[in-house]
Amino acid sequence: MPFFRSVVFQRTAVAAAFTLLAVNTSLAQTPAALPDPAATSVQALGWMQGFPPPPDKQITFDNPAGGVYPRTRWTFSHVRETVPTANVWRGPGAASPLPAATPRIDIEAVRFQPMGGGEPQTFGQMISRTYTDGILVLHRGQVVYEKYFGALTPERPHIAMSVTKSFVGTLAAILADEGTLDPSAPVTKYLPELKDTAYGDATVRQVMDMTIGVRYSENYADPKAEVFDYARAGGMLPQGPNYTGPKSFYEFLATLKKEGTHGDAFAYKTVNAEVLAWIMRRASNRSLADLLSEKIWRRIGAEQDAYFMVDRIGTESGGGGLNTVLRDIARFGETLRNGGRAPNGQQAIPKAVVEDIQRGADPAKFAKAGYALLPGWSYRNMWWVSHNPHGAYMARGIHGQSIYVDPKAEMVIVRYAAHPIAANAGNDPLTLPAFHAMGEALMKP
Amino acid sequence: MPFFRSVVFQRTAVAAAFTLLAVNTSLAQTPAALPDPAATSVQALGWMQGFPPPPDKQITFDNPAGGVYPRTRWTFSHVRETVPTANVWRGPGAASPLPAATPRIDIEAVRFQPMGGGEPQTFGQMISRTYTDGILVLHRGQVVYEKYFGALTPERPHIAMSVTKSFVGTLAAILADEGTLDPSAPVTKYLPELKDTAYGDATVRQVMDMTIGVRYSENYADPKAEVFDYARAGGMLPQGPNYTGPKSFYEFLATLKKEGTHGDAFAYKTVNAEVLAWIMRRASNRSLADLLSEKIWRRIGAEQDAYFMVDRIGTESGGGGLNTVLRDIARFGETLRNGGRAPNGQQAIPKAVVEDIQRGADPAKFAKAGYALLPGWSYRNMWWVSHNPHGAYMARGIHGQSIYVDPKAEMVIVRYAAHPIAANAGNDPLTLPAFHAMGEALMKP
Repeated sequence: MPFFRSVVFQRTAVAAAFTLLAVNTSLAQTPAALPDPAATSVQALGWMQGFPPPPDKQITFDNPAGGVYPRTRWTFSHVRETVPTANVWRGPGAASPLPAATPRIDIEAVRFQPMGGGEPQTFGQMISRTYTDGILVLHRGQVVYEKYFGALTPERPHIAMSVTKSFVGTLAAILADEGTLDPSAPVTKYLPELKDTAYGDATVRQVMDMTIGVRYSENYADPKAEVFDYARAGGMLPQGPNYTGPKSFYEFLATLKKEGTHGDAFAYKTVNAEVLAWIMRRASNRSLADLLSEKIWRRIGAEQDAYFMVDRIGTESGGGGLNTVLRDIARFGETLRNGGRAPNGQQAIPKAVVEDIQRGADPAKFAKAGYALLPGWSYRNMWWVSHNPHGAYMARGIHGQSIYVDPKAEMVIVRYAAHPIAANAGNDPLTLPAFHAMGEALMKP
Repeated sequence: MPFFRSVVFQRTAVAAAFTLLAVNTSLAQTPAALPDPAATSVQALGWMQGFPPPPDKQITFDNPAGGVYPRTRWTFSHVRETVPTANVWRGPGAASPLPAATPRIDIEAVRFQPMGGGEPQTFGQMISRTYTDGILVLHRGQVVYEKYFGALTPERPHIAMSVTKSFVGTLAAILADEGTLDPSAPVTKYLPELKDTAYGDATVRQVMDMTIGVRYSENYADPKAEVFDYARAGGMLPQGPNYTGPKSFYEFLATLKKEGTHGDAFAYKTVNAEVLAWIMRRASNRSLADLLSEKIWRRIGAEQDAYFMVDRIGTESGGGGLNTVLRDIARFGETLRNGGRAPNGQQAIPKAVVEDIQRGADPAKFAKAGYALLPGWSYRNMWWVSHNPHGAYMARGIHGQSIYVDPKAEMVIVRYAAHPIAANAGNDPLTLPAFHAMGEALMKP
């Protein structure tokens, strides 16, 4: 399925060790070496146009080509048309306001210095060169910039990839705040069936902050990496006719073995988000889709339903299966920026939960993971916390999905994208300085 | 998939020749011989409860048991969790009002005489004995009765089965009214690739009214019936590892051969709805989901998005793949009853289109199909027209899905159900007289 195929089949094109969120060794491949984004729009290339589309323009689940750029410009905005999904209801009320305002500055002209050197670039150049499908900038709760490319439109959900995890982590923090979930408890309090797995002696908090020692590789260059077993088990990759492996997320998670220790170092592994989602379901007796609807989606005044990819038995992918419209992750980001108060004025998320995310975790534990492009960062409740002078923090997903909250600049930037490189090392050298520069520019009196 | 499996695997339980909408020979099996509806709620039986659900309580696409009653009480309200789907957007506006009113009469106590004899029964007994998942009665635009059972809730979409066809037929009539589609034109004007099929010498109007002579059987008791090939091609049944047949609706439709003549007799065949949907896509260059959104869903002020099941290349099933919340098909029915004016006051559907449906077609052509329970009826624009003294007309789908419009009584009844018998012969002897009696009761001063 798009989520994983996109990574899997790019390993021929981009021979590097990916993680789902950020590459931890190499510097970014320069965008100049990749296809020109302007020449790869869905309109220009004709994917899935016509009734039926011509055979060479069809994108189907059983053909891995659909996960390879530039077809991903279509696929990432049409996930539910290829796989089963679960709805995240927005509730019966009106959408919360997201007023537009004319910015005092020329947004696209804001200049920044890319990481790793090179000529200064503009925000507009960043948008194009990082294969943006949609981008929205909020300043003090007002939309000062909003544009869509590729197959994306304001009302069409796009896959959030691992931005999903930040919703899962936030939900866990909310359940903890309510007393429904105990972060200090052992995982086995909720999931006794994981007793003989890597999680048998782990705490919920260690799962929430991804300091779990588990034998699980997300190295997409290695055909034996467990990420492929995970993806097949969850129905994100075709299982094939002779498949005998695990047939659900739960069955796969029960196979994971311990490697190393818990609590010492950050180690980014998607399975932790799936385990956390499972813990929450057991603790609340609610599905992940229902939890997200009740605790966040309805409260922030989302304008559209969201949805999760699900496995064979209807289990949502908490690791990367969420799809939303861009404006709704903007509402979520703005709610966090505003201390949990949604654009409709409601205290949608407890203030203590937001403050806990903003504070982040121990950068020393994060440093052990070796993210060269993220010096001094930490990872808390499945959020990436920069600890920079603006106190910025992010939700991040492969191919450029992101929510960037800059509290000091009173700014939120959300972006959906189809960057040919899965790892955010393809985006970060442009996007991170561009986002920070936008905050600086908007702060100027 | 649920839509078809439900029929397929009941042939062992109910050995009869089904059509997708109505059995044309036998009288109804008496409900007394079937499971007690009250004992088969999802809550009582525990389908898909827990994380994970116990193995014997799981419902999955690859296990045909999910299509057999009583599991259908879950399946019919969870279709998107098992198959790919396309969204029908409700638009950005507010839902149109559907005000509740206290009825002057005791709705559940309204009595009627079942067809085929037996004791008089009450409307309340009909609701229970026909395995209702949800039912809503509108009188003069006000909700006088609304109840949900099984797994259905007001905000959860339920599969509409062949009620889908009436949306397709209405859309075709709207496109004709706009001048986008010419009913008198040959099918090949829009679909030249069907030249050598049954549709090679048919008109669009003949497709709209299902007077096509085509070799295609919907006899579910015959394992060689073409309905199984259709369902497999469209991804509604698993294709299996060694499948070599058509892999999309379009590929299947291109195999259909002529049998008999066109224009002489009504012959209910689901493939005609698929051909009509294809014609409309070609004529409008819009997907069926987009057409339904633009021409109906947004205009009637639907409160939730709807969705279609889609095949491998994203083609919506116009024959039976629509899923909606009950209140939205109530809005649609009320819009028709009101001459095309939606509950929000907008002229959502052209008055001429509604009048054309209400007028119906030639009952003599309908009579040739031999529906013993529907004497004097006709079929127009994929609506079932009773020609009774109230001028009632219906959209009808297997297992009891229905929209019943009674213009004289200013009443609309919509119902979603999971009757163990697919053919409406299982429902009609109770539901048809119950609906008519409700109209009579509401009309009394």
